[in-house]
Amino acid sequence: MKNVDALIIGSSAAGFAAAITVRRHYPDAGIAMIRQEEKTLVPCGIPYIFGTLGSTGKNLFPDPVLANNDVDLIIGKATAIDREEKTVTLDSGEAIGYEKLLLTTGSVPLIPPIPGVDMENVFSIKKDVAYLDHLLDVLKKSKDVVIIGGGFIGMEMADECRKLNSANITVVEMLSHCLFMVFDEDICVRTEEELAEAGITIRTSQQVKSLGGNGKVEYVELESGERLQADAVILGIGVRPNTKMAQQAGLVLGPTGAVAVDHHMMTSDPHIFAAGDCAEKVSFFTGKPAKTWLASVATAEARIAAANLFEIRRVNKGAVSVFSTKIGNIACGSAGICERDAAQAGIAYVVGAAESPDKHPGSLPNATQLRVKLVFRKYSGTLIGGQVCGGETVGELVNLIAAMIQTEMNADQIATFQMGTHPLLTASPVTYQVVNAAEIALCKMMHLTV
Amino acid sequence: MKNVDALIIGSSAAGFAAAITVRRHYPDAGIAMIRQEEKTLVPCGIPYIFGTLGSTGKNLFPDPVLANNDVDLIIGKATAIDREEKTVTLDSGEAIGYEKLLLTTGSVPLIPPIPGVDMENVFSIKKDVAYLDHLLDVLKKSKDVVIIGGGFIGMEMADECRKLNSANITVVEMLSHCLFMVFDEDICVRTEEELAEAGITIRTSQQVKSLGGNGKVEYVELESGERLQADAVILGIGVRPNTKMAQQAGLVLGPTGAVAVDHHMMTSDPHIFAAGDCAEKVSFFTGKPAKTWLASVATAEARIAAANLFEIRRVNKGAVSVFSTKIGNIACGSAGICERDAAQAGIAYVVGAAESPDKHPGSLPNATQLRVKLVFRKYSGTLIGGQVCGGETVGELVNLIAAMIQTEMNADQIATFQMGTHPLLTASPVTYQVVNAAEIALCKMMHLTV
Repeated sequence: MKNVDALIIGSSAAGFAAAITVRRHYPDAGIAMIRQEEKTLVPCGIPYIFGTLGSTGKNLFPDPVLANNDVDLIIGKATAIDREEKTVTLDSGEAIGYEKLLLTTGSVPLIPPIPGVDMENVFSIKKDVAYLDHLLDVLKKSKDVVIIGGGFIGMEMADECRKLNSANITVVEMLSHCLFMVFDEDICVRTEEELAEAGITIRTSQQVKSLGGNGKVEYVELESGERLQADAVILGIGVRPNTKMAQQAGLVLGPTGAVAVDHHMMTSDPHIFAAGDCAEKVSFFTGKPAKTWLASVATAEARIAAANLFEIRRVNKGAVSVFSTKIGNIACGSAGICERDAAQAGIAYVVGAAESPDKHPGSLPNATQLRVKLVFRKYSGTLIGGQVCGGETVGELVNLIAAMIQTEMNADQIATFQMGTHPLLTASPVTYQVVNAAEIALCKMMHLTV
Repeated sequence: MKNVDALIIGSSAAGFAAAITVRRHYPDAGIAMIRQEEKTLVPCGIPYIFGTLGSTGKNLFPDPVLANNDVDLIIGKATAIDREEKTVTLDSGEAIGYEKLLLTTGSVPLIPPIPGVDMENVFSIKKDVAYLDHLLDVLKKSKDVVIIGGGFIGMEMADECRKLNSANITVVEMLSHCLFMVFDEDICVRTEEELAEAGITIRTSQQVKSLGGNGKVEYVELESGERLQADAVILGIGVRPNTKMAQQAGLVLGPTGAVAVDHHMMTSDPHIFAAGDCAEKVSFFTGKPAKTWLASVATAEARIAAANLFEIRRVNKGAVSVFSTKIGNIACGSAGICERDAAQAGIAYVVGAAESPDKHPGSLPNATQLRVKLVFRKYSGTLIGGQVCGGETVGELVNLIAAMIQTEMNADQIATFQMGTHPLLTASPVTYQVVNAAEIALCKMMHLTV
């Protein structure tokens, strides 16, 4: 029987980050990774297969990274964990012994209990090359595509399908706005408008009653009775943690149904750790359970779990929730708590916002208006959230805000932050949005307390 | 006689930021700003007048900002400060009384003591609309242009002049590399290669002996005796603080020749503050005098000085030095101390570097290799510097590093930093450069101390 020091199950973002981190922290450890798929897809890149990239083959993790880090890649389906024997069994019958086990089994798409979801040409976004190759094939031939769910995946898929062919694309969203779980209303509206201008139909506040057709899907019926023609339907309503094997092995699950972990990412078994979508999370801000299923959270957790395998070295402070997207020509992102969440959580807060071009002077070619809204705790002035809407620089700008949140900077510190600026790369130092938003919030706080 | 609560002399980045900050912090204050120029140029935008923008008129500060903040704009040359009477006299003879005075008089170009620099068609980069209009006019007609000095201004001017016409452009730099005062060698070499590929001649380790011609410049003579043809010569060798009036008023100057200020930005006269290029600076890292003449430092200082005018509210912790630029298609930036500076300052340090595409998967269109190098104190692990070379996101990425420096994050905290990532906007969460560079440095530190 093969025995390894560190055994990783799962090969998406958390699995890769974990493997690299174990190698860096424990240079002598024997490391193996089990995965079911011959090739693994870059998860966040999946929507781009259907437009910008054009094939699944262009959206794969680079496996040589594993060999370069002396990680033994085992292709097979892990079916059971024997915690007494400290082995993992594969569907081939082979068993692999471990000293420490790290679960990065990720999540699986939620399939809503709607009549007709099992018909042909109804798809979810599975991380499976053959499945997505088939979806791409079907989409190429489709004239009417309905996407159920206006979250990240739904909106990004709509945007990319538009690039594929001239299909009629409709996004059906239950809530009053698309992306409403993750952004304040102003950004939701801008992304909806962006897709509408590109010819995509957005139907918000609409519930799906059933899917109809003759074996193959033909239409989506809304609660109102209205029917939307559909050659293909894509379900993008969310995911759930993939915990079946962990549960069968008797590991404790947490309040959201994921594998329970402590702040070292250790499960109820001290020889087993978990990280990423399959592991329970708490909010950085409230300490309460959080469903922050993001690849970036997954990799941060993987770097903690992997470093702790043989010696506790790191503590997880909870999920901050940092993300960005690009819908049409609008990039937007968020770090921490948005204004609506702060209000709902009963947090006393003050907001400051600033908008100006992302180059200076604004007369430069391709200058884009960039808006930053920051949310601060009202009395301490600590930054707890930021939302950004603008151009290509949004991804790193939201990371700047994420760093300011994680280091608990307050409004005054941010208002005097020393940034670098350049005409072609950023706003001017006078109008720099993050600094001005902080100063505006600070002045509100000062006048409130005078 | 006009009397104001806050009088600002100077109307560049620091002046504008100061005016807005006084208004925000002291809503009832009467504020006036004195400047010599009808219109003021965006200082960092000046090189782009000569290529991308095409005119000085497209590179002006938006004066309506002043009116919107109820700032009284006085066009005139301030000639003297009477500290007893607390008045400033203009060249018109008019005097203006102040309660608090804020000097943001900036810097003036250094003119090297080279024979021939006073000839026609020899220019420095003055913040003067008419002067730069004339330079633009001369450059349009020039066949051979020599730029003396391969710093930011020299390199950016060379890149922009190339866009203007098909002139032969030569950059002459005294040091062994262009940009060698601000970047480690690897980035210097990449920018030199970028300009060379665009057809610009780079002459490093070359000193200029004299300029020759018949009233009008015709050539630049190097120490070697070699002559470079020149219809126009641009001097870009640096600036010096503009302190004449402050000195005449008896304000104490500091070790670099700028107006001495304490950590509240107050000069030797408690009613007079100074900020920006005209004010003394110390390094955030060493506390020693620093010549950090950047618009971004100037505005941060202005926000401190302005908030402190009538009540001490803020402390200046010293200049971090954060900047970015774009030369050809390469964007590069730096925050804090570069590796060479750390070595020269006798700081024990460890470096970690990581490179990967700035989109993910790397097969996405326009993905650019992005390299990050981080410098940490060897024993505490505190981040003290970072250099970045890549594409359009470099400007905000260097600001992320700047925030990590200013909040004194250490390598372990950065290695577990929760960033946001998106295929079209950032590197993958697995390869995210800042996090991986920190982890690499951390592992070096751990193995060193085992």
